Amino acid sequence: MVWVGIIGASGYAGAELVRILSGHPAVQLTLATSRQHAGSRFDSLYPALKDCTDIQLESYSEERVCQNADIVFTALPHRLPMSIVPEILANDRKVIDLSADFRFSDPERYGAAYQSHTAPDLLKEAVYGLSEVYADRIRSARLVGNPGCYPTSVLLPLVPLVRGGLVEREGLIADSKSGVSGAGRSPVPETLYCEVNECFRPYKVGAHRHTPEMEAILGRETGKSVRLTFVPHLVPMNRGMQSTIYARPAQGVSAADIAAAFSDAYAGCAFIRICSSGQVPDVRYVRGTNFCDIGFKLDEARNRLILMSAIDNLVKGAAGQAVQNMNIMLGLDETTGLGAVPFPV
Amino acid sequence: MVWVGIIGASGYAGAELVRILSGHPAVQLTLATSRQHAGSRFDSLYPALKDCTDIQLESYSEERVCQNADIVFTALPHRLPMSIVPEILANDRKVIDLSADFRFSDPERYGAAYQSHTAPDLLKEAVYGLSEVYADRIRSARLVGNPGCYPTSVLLPLVPLVRGGLVEREGLIADSKSGVSGAGRSPVPETLYCEVNECFRPYKVGAHRHTPEMEAILGRETGKSVRLTFVPHLVPMNRGMQSTIYARPAQGVSAADIAAAFSDAYAGCAFIRICSSGQVPDVRYVRGTNFCDIGFKLDEARNRLILMSAIDNLVKGAAGQAVQNMNIMLGLDETTGLGAVPFPV
Amino acid sequence: MVWVGIIGASGYAGAELVRILSGHPAVQLTLATSRQHAGSRFDSLYPALKDCTDIQLESYSEERVCQNADIVFTALPHRLPMSIVPEILANDRKVIDLSADFRFSDPERYGAAYQSHTAPDLLKEAVYGLSEVYADRIRSARLVGNPGCYPTSVLLPLVPLVRGGLVEREGLIADSKSGVSGAGRSPVPETLYCEVNECFRPYKVGAHRHTPEMEAILGRETGKSVRLTFVPHLVPMNRGMQSTIYARPAQGVSAADIAAAFSDAYAGCAFIRICSSGQVPDVRYVRGTNFCDIGFKLDEARNRLILMSAIDNLVKGAAGQAVQNMNIMLGLDETTGLGAVPFPV
Amino acid sequence: MVWVGIIGASGYAGAELVRILSGHPAVQLTLATSRQHAGSRFDSLYPALKDCTDIQLESYSEERVCQNADIVFTALPHRLPMSIVPEILANDRKVIDLSADFRFSDPERYGAAYQSHTAPDLLKEAVYGLSEVYADRIRSARLVGNPGCYPTSVLLPLVPLVRGGLVEREGLIADSKSGVSGAGRSPVPETLYCEVNECFRPYKVGAHRHTPEMEAILGRETGKSVRLTFVPHLVPMNRGMQSTIYARPAQGVSAADIAAAFSDAYAGCAFIRICSSGQVPDVRYVRGTNFCDIGFKLDEARNRLILMSAIDNLVKGAAGQAVQNMNIMLGLDETTGLGAVPFPV
Repeated sequence: MVWVGIIGASGYAGAELVRILSGHPAVQLTLATSRQHAGSRFDSLYPALKDCTDIQLESYSEERVCQNADIVFTALPHRLPMSIVPEILANDRKVIDLSADFRFSDPERYGAAYQSHTAPDLLKEAVYGLSEVYADRIRSARLVGNPGCYPTSVLLPLVPLVRGGLVEREGLIADSKSGVSGAGRSPVPETLYCEVNECFRPYKVGAHRHTPEMEAILGRETGKSVRLTFVPHLVPMNRGMQSTIYARPAQGVSAADIAAAFSDAYAGCAFIRICSSGQVPDVRYVRGTNFCDIGFKLDEARNRLILMSAIDNLVKGAAGQAVQNMNIMLGLDETTGLGAVPFPV
Repeated sequence: MVWVGIIGASGYAGAELVRILSGHPAVQLTLATSRQHAGSRFDSLYPALKDCTDIQLESYSEERVCQNADIVFTALPHRLPMSIVPEILANDRKVIDLSADFRFSDPERYGAAYQSHTAPDLLKEAVYGLSEVYADRIRSARLVGNPGCYPTSVLLPLVPLVRGGLVEREGLIADSKSGVSGAGRSPVPETLYCEVNECFRPYKVGAHRHTPEMEAILGRETGKSVRLTFVPHLVPMNRGMQSTIYARPAQGVSAADIAAAFSDAYAGCAFIRICSSGQVPDVRYVRGTNFCDIGFKLDEARNRLILMSAIDNLVKGAAGQAVQNMNIMLGLDETTGLGAVPFPV
Repeated sequence: MVWVGIIGASGYAGAELVRILSGHPAVQLTLATSRQHAGSRFDSLYPALKDCTDIQLESYSEERVCQNADIVFTALPHRLPMSIVPEILANDRKVIDLSADFRFSDPERYGAAYQSHTAPDLLKEAVYGLSEVYADRIRSARLVGNPGCYPTSVLLPLVPLVRGGLVEREGLIADSKSGVSGAGRSPVPETLYCEVNECFRPYKVGAHRHTPEMEAILGRETGKSVRLTFVPHLVPMNRGMQSTIYARPAQGVSAADIAAAFSDAYAGCAFIRICSSGQVPDVRYVRGTNFCDIGFKLDEARNRLILMSAIDNLVKGAAGQAVQNMNIMLGLDETTGLGAVPFPV
Repeated sequence: MVWVGIIGASGYAGAELVRILSGHPAVQLTLATSRQHAGSRFDSLYPALKDCTDIQLESYSEERVCQNADIVFTALPHRLPMSIVPEILANDRKVIDLSADFRFSDPERYGAAYQSHTAPDLLKEAVYGLSEVYADRIRSARLVGNPGCYPTSVLLPLVPLVRGGLVEREGLIADSKSGVSGAGRSPVPETLYCEVNECFRPYKVGAHRHTPEMEAILGRETGKSVRLTFVPHLVPMNRGMQSTIYARPAQGVSAADIAAAFSDAYAGCAFIRICSSGQVPDVRYVRGTNFCDIGFKLDEARNRLILMSAIDNLVKGAAGQAVQNMNIMLGLDETTGLGAVPFPV
């Protein structure tokens, strides 16, 4: 039995890790930290999990973490992980970081979007944890930078097409919509019930920090600079993320070519479901699951490819993909502990 | 491996049965019927379950059912089960019926609330499937009448107290609130999104057919006629049911007595969680689970006991309790296939 | 043109006052204060009102208020109004206070529920602003304590019946449900979107401070001590409040008697709508309006009267009733500025 | 006092017309028809409007309509208006049609999107009722084709820019999101509460019939063929429509140029509000109002202009704009009856 710990278990992503890891048959959740709630039982914070876990939240201590965990998940605000991950790795522990701190290979790019990186050497070895795309590298990684929720929803449909040259690199647009849990559990006026319910709005228009993350990966995959216009929107729902992506098909590309590219790229990938023709992804179909549903429509009259994806922002967009990465690193079937049947309603 | 079938799999309760049974480790879902959608794959109706089940919906046929199922769930509108259950039982199959048809032992009472019963003899042997209360009888039953959602939420907190004489029989009131999935999947104006969202209303005030069901069980448990005032309300949410129940405590009854009665009644019951003092049940804590959370407040100044419960109407209030009953009938641990860790958010 | 000011305009009730008063044909909104947002334009806080008001938020100053307002609305947390209202009244201004500070005539009772009252002499002259019930006293008041939202929804159906002796004083129960705006705009974890959406729970069970407010009025109307069991619940919706009230009918009372009592009590009251038989109040019918819809069902078999009411907690439950009271005090038609046709959906 | 009638008053758009016209100070609502609900009072269908209108629904009769109305609103499914509008016009009545039947000037284009037009001659004189853009022609029209909700939300931000050549004609994209009331009141499974709540999905991807409507207007304004990629999405909320529109700025165009174009185009337009820099439209700010809020962000690094708009789909997107058009036709101030102050929450 592998021992796992969570640094930062009281936010929504951390709590979702507790949920998944508590039900995981091959690991034991041995430790969970929270600065704010140290000393409290986790289920006093999340009574839903009463009788499902008796874990107690504690303060972070390098010693406690390294004594009690073989693999460590860090679910902290960016900037904190880069200060503690080096010491955890130095103890021969593996780390899956859910923040942005280890998603970039280039410290300049990270610095431009966030702040100066204090552990730039680790960026060379950190693997971007987009599970289906980088499984081979994840398998042998000791440090995984778990992708952002928006990048997961945009890159899974886009990467196979840019890799194969099926769409033009120029003029890519992603119009994304997220449920509110993505904004986290810290109380701010913007995510109060009455400020979200019966509301719909874009935010951080053309300025969201997931943009450089996506551009970096698209650039790596094409070997060229790629620019992406990205506008996120807030949807009155708890969980779920939908992206509609607009691209120019390369000359001569047919709908069958697109379909084939997805089939090839994601053959054997249990969590990718390609919609049949005429069907569209809906976040409700993936709620509470690690699935990414992908659909597309090629509008030949307008020379436009419309890609659509749906994920659960807390699962495939955060904790679920992190556990999928852990499974890959441990040599387990990637679906272990992630195979619950989705809710029909 | 036990073979199970579902008669009426296309409604919300039937679909929830498909979800739970598809993930159940000790049974095989072999058959699912739908009059309206016969010939379609189940996942074309509920795309959430794509890659999770490949069951095909078919028309009802006694022969097909009895060939393919050892245990049969009927999730049909009342009146239909009583016409087919006799022939299924005659084939030595066991039946768990989710309609009202086998919840009453007295055909008169059933007739007064619904219509004339066409298989009244079966009412004598049918067992009321309130799992924690009637486990002993369920264990050896061949026909279980699965309780209504409201009765489950009201009886689980009330039965231990009326049994023990801790509350007065007179003047019981249950004010209940249900998510919209309880109204089913047939399109009617009342359950359109815009007719429920940002709405809140009572319905069938003092006239809901779950009232005689509850009064019958309370009467059986006390040996006397019991009258219950019951008002259901519709809440803008998909799943969940909350009941606030008002009773007069018997003379001299203390909060400790109430707590002890619950501890005694539900010791070892994995799905009953009694809230600690100061906490209240919230439907979000039980969403997607088979839990029933129970809390109470004794207001001595007003000589009033306030009981509160929360369930998921589709799980503990329907499909989950049905599978729990199946587990009991099969001699399995009652939590088999029902143990998923709840979502924190 | 009468000049009016709002002390505390940045919360939801204050903002609703801005909305109503900005559209009121007989008054001019001349001043609005906010400690936290002094110096900002109101519409920078509530962009919905852009082009509808150009009022600027300022700090409280007795001098500014009394120079600029004939009538002052105080929409502050309790305890603050009692420190400033005396000086405003001393300047011959009239005050309508939306907090609890002037709802009680007995300082002891106020003190037991809140804290020691620092202006107890004013309680003698303050008029409880339940418009339809106390219009005569409101007309000549210089200080009105505007009722709480829950009391408004419970007292409007109950008062005519307890006055007339149509229900028993003993054993009254109010099970109430409120939209989230009632919790205000201060960011706390409990009212974050994800902590309310798809949730339903009771709160402050048997301990809400609106209980003594209701008991005081019911006591005044019956001349005897009245005890009320009151349980509020939180509904995932922005606005709206529904109460289901359970009472014992007095001997011999018929449904016609109840209907007649309402007709008599509320004849000519533009904002009270009595549901016809078989219809129930729904909060959606009163959303954004000053209506209180009232329905009832007499269950003779169980000797129980079920009363139901629906209001908009921010309008009839707060700002709307406050403006109605202002209209009465000014000798205007009570519907002035409050007559917008409700939204059908 | 002008007499107005509504043909098709029982759907959501028709009911919204009843709401607005009942409160309109310069007209009298004299007649409302409904095939399905003829003989019922309107407020039995929409109890929110009890005491606000006593209009009775009746069957359509040319004679009754022309006797009782000077101006007629038709709020019927497309295809029905073109069969009755000719006879109403022949009686010298004016018509504002909310369906698609009179939005196209070219019968071919209408026929391609809908079906063969049976009154093609009227298309020549029908005026497209985008109030701010075509006010001059609306003023003297006897037949107005009221724009679709999506076209209103897309064209109001786009038209001033394509007119002025500030954006390229090629590669326009509109990603729109609508509340559920846009789907109407007929009960279908897709708009049941549980099939929308906690859901988010695109629909009619690249195939919505509002696309040719928008392309026709954009073509007229540029004098050239324009192609628009349009993807609508369904948002779990009752009312509201948000569009995010992506365009290439013409060479040398600055943010100041865009701002100036809007200022010029919409100077004196009471219902157009241009967001200040850094602010974005949110549907909540326009809920229940006839406003169209418009914002934009010029992303120079990516050579992309992002336009954003928000309207209430039932008001500016349907009934409100229809009444605005009526006001223009009657020579009234365009805001008459449409000036209610928006709700802050």
